[in-house]
Amino acid sequence: MLNTMLQAATGMAQFGGAVGAGLAAIGAGIGIGLIGKGAVESIARQPEASGDIRANMILTAALIEGVALFAVIAGLLAVLSK
Amino acid sequence: MLNTMLQAATGMAQFGGAVGAGLAAIGAGIGIGLIGKGAVESIARQPEASGDIRANMILTAALIEGVALFAVIAGLLAVLSK
Amino acid sequence: MLNTMLQAATGMAQFGGAVGAGLAAIGAGIGIGLIGKGAVESIARQPEASGDIRANMILTAALIEGVALFAVIAGLLAVLSK
Repeated sequence: MLNTMLQAATGMAQFGGAVGAGLAAIGAGIGIGLIGKGAVESIARQPEASGDIRANMILTAALIEGVALFAVIAGLLAVLSK
Repeated sequence: MLNTMLQAATGMAQFGGAVGAGLAAIGAGIGIGLIGKGAVESIARQPEASGDIRANMILTAALIEGVALFAVIAGLLAVLSK
Repeated sequence: MLNTMLQAATGMAQFGGAVGAGLAAIGAGIGIGLIGKGAVESIARQPEASGDIRANMILTAALIEGVALFAVIAGLLAVLSK
């Protein structure tokens, strides 16, 4: 009985881990999407500033990527817990 | 009885895994969609900058794709857990 | 009683699988919708760049399609679990 309740808890952990990883991907998707949209539109408006635009685009996208990957790893660890 | 509660736990894990994978796909869809929309509109405004625009488009889309695929894999692991 | 709880667990997994597949379809729908909208509007504004626009449209739409199909497969596996 005790062992079974432990298994039920593991099921809940996997549930939360997968949902959390999905939520993190939503954040990264919307955030980096906004950055990428702004960057390509800015290059179209000012093509000679494309190097500068790309540098700033990568910088902010990497910041989002860092947090999101961290959260996905946390979700993955919860999924793999037993 | 014990075995059945174990099955219930697995059901919750599969529930969360599928929902999490769907959430990750929402993030990738909105994010890459924004980038793709911005890119084609930018090429229409400045066709001679299309190479530069495409490079930045692929770069940010790949960043989103990476996180989203990672989260979908986490969901898939939860679905396949037993 | 035991058998019934097992059925309930399977029901949760299938419920989540269907919802997750639906969420993935939301993501793909919004994302590819944004790209398609931008593409046809861009071709209307700059018809001579239509080849370039179509190439970029297909590229980003394929990226979204990849993640979304993966998530739908995860949902399908949860639905088919027993």
